[in-house]
Amino acid sequence: MSSSLHAVIPAGGSGTRLWPLSRSGKPKFLLPLPGPRTMIQETVARLSPVWGSERLTIVTGAAHAPEVLRQLPGLDADHLIVEPLARGSGPAIGLATAIAGRRDPDAIVGSFAADHVVLQQDLFDATVRAAIDAARRGYLVTIGIQPTYAETGYGYIHRGDGIGNGADACRVRKFKEKPDAATAEQYVAAGDYLWNASMFVWQAKTLMAEMRRHLPDLAAVLEELAAVWDTPDRERAFAELWPLVVEVTIDEGILEQSDRVAVVPASFDWTDLGDWHGLGSILGGGTTENVVINTEALLNDSRGSVVMGNGRLIALLGLDDVVIVDTADALLVCHRGRTQEVRKLVDELKQRGDRHLV
Amino acid sequence: MSSSLHAVIPAGGSGTRLWPLSRSGKPKFLLPLPGPRTMIQETVARLSPVWGSERLTIVTGAAHAPEVLRQLPGLDADHLIVEPLARGSGPAIGLATAIAGRRDPDAIVGSFAADHVVLQQDLFDATVRAAIDAARRGYLVTIGIQPTYAETGYGYIHRGDGIGNGADACRVRKFKEKPDAATAEQYVAAGDYLWNASMFVWQAKTLMAEMRRHLPDLAAVLEELAAVWDTPDRERAFAELWPLVVEVTIDEGILEQSDRVAVVPASFDWTDLGDWHGLGSILGGGTTENVVINTEALLNDSRGSVVMGNGRLIALLGLDDVVIVDTADALLVCHRGRTQEVRKLVDELKQRGDRHLV
Repeated sequence: MSSSLHAVIPAGGSGTRLWPLSRSGKPKFLLPLPGPRTMIQETVARLSPVWGSERLTIVTGAAHAPEVLRQLPGLDADHLIVEPLARGSGPAIGLATAIAGRRDPDAIVGSFAADHVVLQQDLFDATVRAAIDAARRGYLVTIGIQPTYAETGYGYIHRGDGIGNGADACRVRKFKEKPDAATAEQYVAAGDYLWNASMFVWQAKTLMAEMRRHLPDLAAVLEELAAVWDTPDRERAFAELWPLVVEVTIDEGILEQSDRVAVVPASFDWTDLGDWHGLGSILGGGTTENVVINTEALLNDSRGSVVMGNGRLIALLGLDDVVIVDTADALLVCHRGRTQEVRKLVDELKQRGDRHLV
Repeated sequence: MSSSLHAVIPAGGSGTRLWPLSRSGKPKFLLPLPGPRTMIQETVARLSPVWGSERLTIVTGAAHAPEVLRQLPGLDADHLIVEPLARGSGPAIGLATAIAGRRDPDAIVGSFAADHVVLQQDLFDATVRAAIDAARRGYLVTIGIQPTYAETGYGYIHRGDGIGNGADACRVRKFKEKPDAATAEQYVAAGDYLWNASMFVWQAKTLMAEMRRHLPDLAAVLEELAAVWDTPDRERAFAELWPLVVEVTIDEGILEQSDRVAVVPASFDWTDLGDWHGLGSILGGGTTENVVINTEALLNDSRGSVVMGNGRLIALLGLDDVVIVDTADALLVCHRGRTQEVRKLVDELKQRGDRHLV
């Protein structure tokens, strides 16, 4: 039972809806949200109690690799997989899993996004341990968050019966796409739907067996790459083979196809921090309290607002549910109910040619 | 009828409600509102067509005199009256009038605040000429603005019949304090109420005669000062006598007491720019159009907002009637209906000891 534990942190995505703090050169996982540490620093710290920090692999794009190494000075450069181009989470997490399995046939791999927020470390650790337990029993295990409200920005997991034998994990009936508001309400009322938090735990050999079944071409390439990864052929093979792999998410490519999937329900507070409203929700504990980060603020007759500062005094008077994000060269003032549309502002700036601002 | 024309610009007040742009060291009249020139520069330019620029006197406090001279490089330092301490508009405008009358017994003096906005220069000039005409007939003339809405932040003038003989001026029935909203509506509906714009025109000898009647002590001191103003005794007399004068506004001390007052109704657009809403109103022409000053702004689904920038991009999304004022060390985000309360924020900052921000 002492099979080695390997954590993978896929560090991709842009976080466009967190503009103007996020920029193309500074995606969400490299930002100090909610701070003071950056999201990837926080993720590494969150994983270390269970997974240790030595067998931790980060998968990121070439553009962000230098900043990842700067933010994680303890990271062995050999534990950084720098994708020549992004192919989605399927190839990214799959490659890290294949390499871990090649090095250690009994490896248990956990994958955790670099840009999510988790509160209650102790609950997180206990959930992860339950997921490891289910993984040892041969399941592809995902962690599902007990929903606290009818979020339409997340996918849901419809859980089934427990897998038995004292495990905390349940069978998965079905993965559900992001629902509309009415459907989300139904899911929350039903009680057996969980938020898909994109946290996965499995034995490397389980995933590769399922990949050979559902994505055989990808499995072949990843196993070929894993075979040469610790040899001088790595660079050549990576450059040659990577552009050929299919672009697919691990969810769609494998988890939604496999009958070996289980979910561990979790009750820690979690957000993918997709937008400023999400940040305010997790920091404000779902209340209408104002949330102020990284500045001094003077809030008069304002409720439910989120203020992300940049050192300057920010005074807010007579406005509820406002998001203010202050950066050196751009300022966002937005209704909290419209934070999903920040993406459109970024598109507009791109079209105007204001590339220095996006 | 070639009596000389002398313009006085009382340059006082703080403009607290225009924080964070206005600060104690940078009151409203020294700010570029609406820009690009500062308000006092704009006032001097506005007066020059009728009054010329050579016989123009500015009355200001010691703290602001250097910046006034910097902003008005053409100003003869001898035309700057630097008050040792502020005693209100009565002594300030009175002294400038007494000096003009001493130098030129037939002098006609016009007084215009340094921090008001006037659109339509041609209408302004015509109104001022009508006021000069009435002043020549021995009236203390004020200019009253035809109200365009029920503003509660201004005093009103209830006008009476014309003074006759082809003049545009009317008798004044009564000066009215700032009204409540219902009263302001009545004034606007009645049609014979005008906004008191604190613009005055009179012969120096008329004002001094009325002052001797209603404020004899002040008249005596001002005439004593005027007598020595162009002598080496000025400094000593000013320092000795000024602290003794009564603190009083010209409105309350003389205009509201005298029966020699007339008002010239005016139809140019005017605001005392008391708050950010006022700035938006005059620049937006009373519409719900957004007003953007001094920056690039990206306004999505926002109406009736006022954005005063500082060079940075400002993006506004999904909020109506918002005021955003961006400065180097402080940012204000305020509902447009609450701009009068910005004064309270400044009080709060003072109480907290944040003197560098006020």
